[in-house]
Amino acid sequence: MTKTYEELKTRLAAIHDLRMARAILGWDQHTKMPPKAGEIRAEQLGTLDHLSHELFISDEIGELLEEVAGQEDELDPDSIEGSLVRVTRRDYEKAKRVPSKLRAEMTRAGSIALSAWVEAREKSDFSIFLPYLKRNLELQHEYIACFDGLGYETAYDVLLDDFDEGMKTAEVQTVFDELKRELIPFIGEIGERSDRVDDSSLHGNFPIEAQRSFALEVLERIGFDHESWRLDPTVHPFAMSAATTDIRLTTRYDETDLSVSLFATIHEFGHGFYEANVDPALERTPLSQVSSMSLHESQSRMWENLVGRGLPFWRFFYPRLQAVFPKQFGDVELDEYYRAINKVQPSLIRVEADEATYNLHVILRFELEQQMLSGELPLEELPEAWNARMTEYLGIEVPDDARGVLQDVHWSGGAVGYFPTYSLGNVVSVQLWEQLRTEIPDLDSQLERGEFGELNGWLRENLHRHGRKYTSRETLERITGGGMDPGPYLRYLREKLGEIYGLSVSAASAA
Amino acid sequence: MTKTYEELKTRLAAIHDLRMARAILGWDQHTKMPPKAGEIRAEQLGTLDHLSHELFISDEIGELLEEVAGQEDELDPDSIEGSLVRVTRRDYEKAKRVPSKLRAEMTRAGSIALSAWVEAREKSDFSIFLPYLKRNLELQHEYIACFDGLGYETAYDVLLDDFDEGMKTAEVQTVFDELKRELIPFIGEIGERSDRVDDSSLHGNFPIEAQRSFALEVLERIGFDHESWRLDPTVHPFAMSAATTDIRLTTRYDETDLSVSLFATIHEFGHGFYEANVDPALERTPLSQVSSMSLHESQSRMWENLVGRGLPFWRFFYPRLQAVFPKQFGDVELDEYYRAINKVQPSLIRVEADEATYNLHVILRFELEQQMLSGELPLEELPEAWNARMTEYLGIEVPDDARGVLQDVHWSGGAVGYFPTYSLGNVVSVQLWEQLRTEIPDLDSQLERGEFGELNGWLRENLHRHGRKYTSRETLERITGGGMDPGPYLRYLREKLGEIYGLSVSAASAA
Repeated sequence: MTKTYEELKTRLAAIHDLRMARAILGWDQHTKMPPKAGEIRAEQLGTLDHLSHELFISDEIGELLEEVAGQEDELDPDSIEGSLVRVTRRDYEKAKRVPSKLRAEMTRAGSIALSAWVEAREKSDFSIFLPYLKRNLELQHEYIACFDGLGYETAYDVLLDDFDEGMKTAEVQTVFDELKRELIPFIGEIGERSDRVDDSSLHGNFPIEAQRSFALEVLERIGFDHESWRLDPTVHPFAMSAATTDIRLTTRYDETDLSVSLFATIHEFGHGFYEANVDPALERTPLSQVSSMSLHESQSRMWENLVGRGLPFWRFFYPRLQAVFPKQFGDVELDEYYRAINKVQPSLIRVEADEATYNLHVILRFELEQQMLSGELPLEELPEAWNARMTEYLGIEVPDDARGVLQDVHWSGGAVGYFPTYSLGNVVSVQLWEQLRTEIPDLDSQLERGEFGELNGWLRENLHRHGRKYTSRETLERITGGGMDPGPYLRYLREKLGEIYGLSVSAASAA
Repeated sequence: MTKTYEELKTRLAAIHDLRMARAILGWDQHTKMPPKAGEIRAEQLGTLDHLSHELFISDEIGELLEEVAGQEDELDPDSIEGSLVRVTRRDYEKAKRVPSKLRAEMTRAGSIALSAWVEAREKSDFSIFLPYLKRNLELQHEYIACFDGLGYETAYDVLLDDFDEGMKTAEVQTVFDELKRELIPFIGEIGERSDRVDDSSLHGNFPIEAQRSFALEVLERIGFDHESWRLDPTVHPFAMSAATTDIRLTTRYDETDLSVSLFATIHEFGHGFYEANVDPALERTPLSQVSSMSLHESQSRMWENLVGRGLPFWRFFYPRLQAVFPKQFGDVELDEYYRAINKVQPSLIRVEADEATYNLHVILRFELEQQMLSGELPLEELPEAWNARMTEYLGIEVPDDARGVLQDVHWSGGAVGYFPTYSLGNVVSVQLWEQLRTEIPDLDSQLERGEFGELNGWLRENLHRHGRKYTSRETLERITGGGMDPGPYLRYLREKLGEIYGLSVSAASAA
């Protein structure tokens, strides 16, 4: 066993190195690469994906997996060894169905589509992006076809599974239906009281250098460390890690709007912090990177909203923010600021949306993706379908494609099935939050003092250190003893926002 | 033929992509990577080198090369096809003698040694670096042993060949002996007239942002383009290209000394410009990157010195420099500035050395490298040997290791045999320069008007576009009709510096 296992681990380490090289090239593409290099970069990324895929689906890996199979019963499923074999086998079964050429072509097409998307977004012209989106969808269909006969109920299930192992469309649908049923009328009620919150202090003139330096001050307090982390500007914020000691956050600054960058940065911190805290013993194994995006988003959304839009957090940081931007906040009371950053208002851009309307942005994408995939919605009509749904769910008119269908990067990279994980992350974040609050009863007063040690310790111990050992389902079960449940999340929204907007909880609940 | 050739080209393209990914990771390591990521980065680089080496020395490449061998006579040796096959075969013959494990271990060891070198340099403590240097040397010996029986005259020839194909130690020795014989007394003569040049205007307070913005203004005028290039700060300046559309220069700023960054930036521009101008048809082939470092350095040293320290160049740019730094240069005449940037003065740091003493820094390293390799000089004694030679050649005392034996990055990465190419580059640069001046008789007046089009066109047409099709010997023969000759370079130094220091050319020549 030992020798076979070590051989397997060595091979997986090299494959992991290749994937991390690819991640660094991707980060570079979004943050540093000169624009004209995009075409060649697509080839480079395609080659890296092709090679790591080839190496992974090789006969050697298959044989090693078979050799360890017989002895797997002896392994503790919670051990690194047991988890590595279990997770690798699942990945292998899935990957070997996908030809390397298709894998490389998906990467190449996605990389080229990225440049087209950037241009289309700049010019707010969907037609520039359309042929690339079509190509990406074609490739998604080819990809889905690789899994014929494996018992997936829907084509969308195949894609979902890549972002949240074992997640089913029907399951997401149930959660989302409940969110929609509760949130649409709730947001309507809040809309009638919109004058109760004034967020004008968040709009004005916030020099980018000052924004960056304040964000770094916050990050350093909550867990960012310059020896192992970076923060760079980009068009569409994301986090990337290439090792537990190589964590890279990106953010987008808007000089006229403080919240755009600040909350995106805290959001990405949540992603980075997850992977920074993975057990170093998992380094250079497939277990070191968390592939369940709903777990990942539970962490980013938790930091962004449960911590970062919470009153205790700002009791500590608000005086610092006032000192950095005295003209904007000198005369604004903490309570007013707290209400401002939690203002609920239907708006155009998902990543800038408040906590309540955010989910409708996600649900809209989830529904459109299924229609795109089934062919029910011709891609030419996507902008109209998008705009119609924005009116239906949020009551707003989309003025142009840049602020509509072209706002997100995901489809350019061929990522269909990713969006739902944002709202699933919201749901999971509150389930975890409720659990950790019962175990750290004085959490609020710790946060008010700027003390993040116990919170971080809990997250590291219960969630982060395990890396990819467990699926989101297994993780939820281990921590909360149950499955995914939108109840706590809806309760949280009703309580927090109900208080801000002067809605009694029971009234909101009856809505 | 066509099908075999296409298959070969496709495989080489993937290998090239891997090498470029490695180059980008190397650039990132020196410019962006969080420090603690160094250990894992060493593994990632090792894996990329291991893989690209394995793929290159594979039986498939060997068989494809054999298949095309029979039909090679039909190929024009100047064509892309002919060159690709010729160059690949030479590379293959050499590479297949090196085990992939050794290749990867050299990379890993070099990458780890880099971190040790950074620390050793910061603390000016050679003993920190010593064990890593020892390991690098051990690996160099293993590497050299791979080429036993191939007719290399000396161990050093094996290493030289990697940086300048076909170059022999004896040939370098001959050139360097002539440089030494002429330059040591010449520098002595200048030393007696050192009061003739005052370079105090170059020392003062030059805010880094202003330095960067002036450097970019110069670069943009001479050929830098933000769509395909970058400029970043680093500890030890270098240039990297991952495509003709992805050219990255790095520089080091010193707030008290304008010339440190300015001339390093122009130097690195010369490297970048070479690879930016390679025929796009060579993209993603081994011909797209110039591996003859003496040709490469001929370009960087040409831009740095023949152009960048020339009077015509500054007739155009000096008024701009005065406008950016009026306090420093407002009262300094162009002629005085020109003399200042050409001041000859024995100094500690190679990359900051003037044109004349520079070569002695290089010769010192060339001589020490041979002693290190032969075992004649135990590595423990390297600092003393370094310091003794600095006194012998340049008459100066080395105060600490940071400004002595630890100043250069090369040995940390395991690059032994690279240094000579700097002075060979000097020699070649003037041979090319003489040729291009006969073909562009009014070059000086073009440069005075800030017109670089004809110069750039000549370089592109005669040198750059060919990429790696020809060796430095073949290239020199094609352009000048002869071989390497230090005569023009020594003549150039005597004339330029003789004029500045009021030495008659014949007097200097007699020295």
